[in-house]
Amino acid sequence: MDFHSAPRFPRGFRCASRNIGLKPDAKDLALFVSEVEATAAALFTRNQFPGAPVILGRETIKGGRLRAIVVNSKVSNVATGAVGLTNAKRMATAAAREIAATPDRVLVSSTGVIGIPLPIDKIEAGIHGMSAELQGDPLVGAEGIMTTDTHPKALSVSVGEATITWVAKGSGMIEPNMATMLAYIFTDAALTAMDLDGMLRAAARVSFNMLSVDSDTSTSDTCAILANGMAGAVDAKAFSECLVAGCIRMTEVLARDGEGATRLLRVTARGAKSASDARRIAKTLVNSPLIKTMVNGADPNVGRILMAVGKCVDCTIVPDKTSASINGFDVVRKGARLDFDDQRAREALSTDTVDLVVDLGVGGESATAYGCDLSTGYITENAAYYSS
Amino acid sequence: MDFHSAPRFPRGFRCASRNIGLKPDAKDLALFVSEVEATAAALFTRNQFPGAPVILGRETIKGGRLRAIVVNSKVSNVATGAVGLTNAKRMATAAAREIAATPDRVLVSSTGVIGIPLPIDKIEAGIHGMSAELQGDPLVGAEGIMTTDTHPKALSVSVGEATITWVAKGSGMIEPNMATMLAYIFTDAALTAMDLDGMLRAAARVSFNMLSVDSDTSTSDTCAILANGMAGAVDAKAFSECLVAGCIRMTEVLARDGEGATRLLRVTARGAKSASDARRIAKTLVNSPLIKTMVNGADPNVGRILMAVGKCVDCTIVPDKTSASINGFDVVRKGARLDFDDQRAREALSTDTVDLVVDLGVGGESATAYGCDLSTGYITENAAYYSS
Repeated sequence: MDFHSAPRFPRGFRCASRNIGLKPDAKDLALFVSEVEATAAALFTRNQFPGAPVILGRETIKGGRLRAIVVNSKVSNVATGAVGLTNAKRMATAAAREIAATPDRVLVSSTGVIGIPLPIDKIEAGIHGMSAELQGDPLVGAEGIMTTDTHPKALSVSVGEATITWVAKGSGMIEPNMATMLAYIFTDAALTAMDLDGMLRAAARVSFNMLSVDSDTSTSDTCAILANGMAGAVDAKAFSECLVAGCIRMTEVLARDGEGATRLLRVTARGAKSASDARRIAKTLVNSPLIKTMVNGADPNVGRILMAVGKCVDCTIVPDKTSASINGFDVVRKGARLDFDDQRAREALSTDTVDLVVDLGVGGESATAYGCDLSTGYITENAAYYSS
Repeated sequence: MDFHSAPRFPRGFRCASRNIGLKPDAKDLALFVSEVEATAAALFTRNQFPGAPVILGRETIKGGRLRAIVVNSKVSNVATGAVGLTNAKRMATAAAREIAATPDRVLVSSTGVIGIPLPIDKIEAGIHGMSAELQGDPLVGAEGIMTTDTHPKALSVSVGEATITWVAKGSGMIEPNMATMLAYIFTDAALTAMDLDGMLRAAARVSFNMLSVDSDTSTSDTCAILANGMAGAVDAKAFSECLVAGCIRMTEVLARDGEGATRLLRVTARGAKSASDARRIAKTLVNSPLIKTMVNGADPNVGRILMAVGKCVDCTIVPDKTSASINGFDVVRKGARLDFDDQRAREALSTDTVDLVVDLGVGGESATAYGCDLSTGYITENAAYYSS
């Protein structure tokens, strides 16, 4: 899978971003626009306190068509009551007016602090005039949607004549439960909204839904795909494969930039009796604070791997058949820690990407989960997030 | 409930502890003995990689009778294969010989690093002669079972003529799933093993099983109760009430001393539709990294409370009916963050014990979970646990 060396948009997509004073200096508003109406599908958080933009977005996406996505950061418009929904609609209306569309063709996202009123007047004023600033670099839009991310995130790839482009953000409060924090996917391939929905669900299942930075599920998770058809029909299988590969790659990019992360942690559970066991065990390991701190310190305390597998009390686990490796270096066999040189385990734990593989030896199912280590940076960042 | 100002043993119980070289200087071996055979019950971890002492303990406790408990720290004897079980039996045999009992009357516990062979020769030699050092202060035994605890933990209380004494340890890898890390309860009341089993399960359900320091379930969790009958019969109801109250108090002591903890976090979910919803929601909040860091920094980012409630996707939650308070200070009503003075929320979050109450408004069930904040101390402690 060859991602473009610099991400670019498919035909007909452009974006702009601005600072409108929600944050002191950084960009805090972004607009993504297709010059023609696109078919669309989206997945949203399963959190039972969804933000107003998610409530509105679920209605909007029923139409299966979008012209634009408008996003602010700093304030999430969650737990803001009826006025929150009114404000989300006003935000859609302002963006629609700016690009000569109707509000039902605009998807809205907001992320940031929960429970604070959305500064809608600033946002309406801020959207005004953005259409004149639309340009072709997806990283400009990616910058406008960042919260605690340390860098803007965009990827693109060619599929035949078409292009697929991912723009995403997310560093903390990430254990998506239908989608990731914010991930927008743009393509000029011609596909129906129903096809997009099926392909997006399949891709999210093995990518964004297997990502966890801290086991906390956001109230704002949104993953949307827009296809404007300007490149014509594509081979559906090739498109779907590229979509999956790009979603996995973006998942890794998000995990690697998890709040305080110093390493990407990839956990594969294989040889599981069922797919759900494999998913559950991989997720449990990627979320275990004691696995995450072991990776952070490159501390060869590998017995913790068995602890974390074993706490999946409802999964089929046979201690004698369980083995594990770190970056290909065997550390556990038949349920017992191997007698190895600590220094070699320390080296295996010291790479930028740490691949932890657990073989359960009881079946043929496997799953991979994506996360990061747990560092003091996560604590300092989140112990004063509201106040800083 | 009046706990004794200095903890003491019931009639007939004594203990000793020693440094036998598993750790550089600190005590690493403890022996608890009843001078007459006691009825007994115990709960063990549900982790699917139980340590050898847990495997042996499940057999031993079937007899319903114990004379002694022998415990080492530093090495957990988990994931050590068949030789691990042999070593646990040798440890029971050595303690039995020392007190003129049989090995089937000795409960063994080991905690510490997972996957390292138990230094059984040192332990056998170390047990020799301990019976001459048995004395009456439970804190001496409590000191011998510590790992990362910052202080030894013991409590006692009178019930009529009888006494109940708790000795426990545990700082990290704590989300017990049947019992806590190590908690031993001694009484001179006369009770059958079957009565003890029922009372212990009921008490653990609302105490140790509602404790979580870091959501990681240990492979060594053991909670045992011994009743030697030397004080005769007691009122069962009064005894049971004291047992519950003491287990809750010890749970709080353990949570407050969680690895890196600077505060005790107590989360009550009330107004829930079912008891399992209440337990699930209280546990989810007490485990949420973003709630725990909010408490650590006394950061009034209270919208996170709704995020954590909402991620319980299978529970009955009605946003409009959800309210929350911190130390009695209302922060959320009808699913929306109240407009309050940040400084007051900051003060409510700054106390040594932080009581977070969520009222779900959909039923009459409630549950309380016990935990602590998440600090940089947890990270530094666990990023180099094996190596230090």
